[in-house]
Amino acid sequence: MARERMEQLTKPPRSLGFLEEVALRLAAIQGRVKPELGRGAVVVAAADHGVVAEGVSAFPQEVTRQMVLNFLRGGAAINQFARVADCEVYVLDAGVIGDLPDHPRLLKAKVREGSANLAQGPAMTLEEAEKALQAGRRAARRALEEGATLLAAGDMGIGNTTAAAALAAALLGLPPEQVVGRGTGVGEEGLLRKREAVRRALARLRPGMGPLEVAAEVGGLELLAIAGVYLEGAAWGVPLVLDGFPVSTGFLLASRLDPGVLGYAFAGHLSREPGHRAVLEALGLRPLLDLDLALGEGTGAVLAMPLLRAVARILHMATFAEAGVSGSQ
Amino acid sequence: MARERMEQLTKPPRSLGFLEEVALRLAAIQGRVKPELGRGAVVVAAADHGVVAEGVSAFPQEVTRQMVLNFLRGGAAINQFARVADCEVYVLDAGVIGDLPDHPRLLKAKVREGSANLAQGPAMTLEEAEKALQAGRRAARRALEEGATLLAAGDMGIGNTTAAAALAAALLGLPPEQVVGRGTGVGEEGLLRKREAVRRALARLRPGMGPLEVAAEVGGLELLAIAGVYLEGAAWGVPLVLDGFPVSTGFLLASRLDPGVLGYAFAGHLSREPGHRAVLEALGLRPLLDLDLALGEGTGAVLAMPLLRAVARILHMATFAEAGVSGSQ
Repeated sequence: MARERMEQLTKPPRSLGFLEEVALRLAAIQGRVKPELGRGAVVVAAADHGVVAEGVSAFPQEVTRQMVLNFLRGGAAINQFARVADCEVYVLDAGVIGDLPDHPRLLKAKVREGSANLAQGPAMTLEEAEKALQAGRRAARRALEEGATLLAAGDMGIGNTTAAAALAAALLGLPPEQVVGRGTGVGEEGLLRKREAVRRALARLRPGMGPLEVAAEVGGLELLAIAGVYLEGAAWGVPLVLDGFPVSTGFLLASRLDPGVLGYAFAGHLSREPGHRAVLEALGLRPLLDLDLALGEGTGAVLAMPLLRAVARILHMATFAEAGVSGSQ
Repeated sequence: MARERMEQLTKPPRSLGFLEEVALRLAAIQGRVKPELGRGAVVVAAADHGVVAEGVSAFPQEVTRQMVLNFLRGGAAINQFARVADCEVYVLDAGVIGDLPDHPRLLKAKVREGSANLAQGPAMTLEEAEKALQAGRRAARRALEEGATLLAAGDMGIGNTTAAAALAAALLGLPPEQVVGRGTGVGEEGLLRKREAVRRALARLRPGMGPLEVAAEVGGLELLAIAGVYLEGAAWGVPLVLDGFPVSTGFLLASRLDPGVLGYAFAGHLSREPGHRAVLEALGLRPLLDLDLALGEGTGAVLAMPLLRAVARILHMATFAEAGVSGSQ
């Protein structure tokens, strides 16, 4: 029905390019010919990473907690973007080191104070991985109960591109070189240390391990939570927007736990972190934006929300018959 | 000042990629460290083209007028996109064949009923070109007086990618092959007819002709109006958003009449019409979106408006010092 209407809208056939496909997917997800998108929500999952001891990040570990405080005060990029994108920001503490104050938009679900160093041993137990996943599901449920019609996850965690690289490499069967990048801007030596950390984590994996076991082995806690956010969002049947490398890798994990999530996913943007392209290609998703971003927090997803809202309007256009416009010759 | 603040914001350096450059340009245009973008406006300039007699379009000429009526009733893509982008739509009749009803958002400034066939002779007189340009300026003034803080032009005119190709080829010194595309979806033979029409128009140009004389020779009326929209917008000092091939070619003309407009321009998107890339490269503008659009009406510009509004917020982020966040090691 939506496809038939698309062919009759007052525009040259296929003149809205990739957006026509996106509009048809929105219609299919909502089960209506004329989809409608209202308020969005982003759940920014935060956790620390023991692997920072390997010297893999340009920023010190305490920045994770400091940035969470910045999110709660509205000073970060995600707050500024969400404010003009009709999007609510929720912050989920899945494993930040240190105490955090009470705040109406902070969901406290600290599984442990940071993951263990993935270069030296398992990042967490299977039980902890399951707990982090469930924390993400609860956070998404809160956002959806409060009216979100479009759901994204964001990430905050110094060291998390190392964990994401290990998880993406493990799930996609890729060598570290293809998925390890500079993250927040690590130098040449740090890059080599990241690769080595990922290599060591991958060496511990055994054939036949399930996706959750793999994720427990390589971390991190917020990547598990992100998978939970998307699993819950798909269960509610809302469109899901992916952000950059860590978030898309969390989604990749969700898709291994339940391939049904794929039908709800839209890639908000293509990050300049090299592993992101590999993850999106594996997921078969074309990004809406391509702006050399490499920030995380959910920023690329939230920037794409107004675009998705506009795309939903395509099927509200008049048809040639409704508007009395002549078709092509 | 804005550049200094950008370096201190709570994010890894350059992690917002291309958007940091866009934010700094917005700050420079508004002359403030923290730019603010409110309501947008798009002036959709419409006119007919005598060159359709050459068989250059997939749609019949009467579609120009029919689509203007569709714009006034809110049924077109530009209406649907503008409605979720906090953008007002103004329609400017610069030379549509046939009568149009009175409407609060229709600006009647018909210079003549369609341009003459550019393949056979001058599209219009120099006086008519000047009138169309002034009509665009007046339309922009109306939008700006009514509160627009961000200004785009749109285009509607069956046959106008032929006129735009001729104008772009003339102003950039390119052969027809590089700038003639399929427009609304013309077939292989139509494409050859388009190239031939452009070739004939270019053959009439003489060295030393000024940009307005060239535009009068090859048309079209709405391309002149578009140039006027942007000249007026730059005079008011507001950020200007470009759309696809015809609109960007109209802007290119404006930039030849007054290079000062370049400082205010942002490329909303990259169209799949082949000449668009050449025009944007000549203007030195990187597009914000790249989604295979080829619709016109200002759609690609209006889709980029919420993104520009988000970009303006970057400089409102907290600095490391303001947020108490540690910098990189």
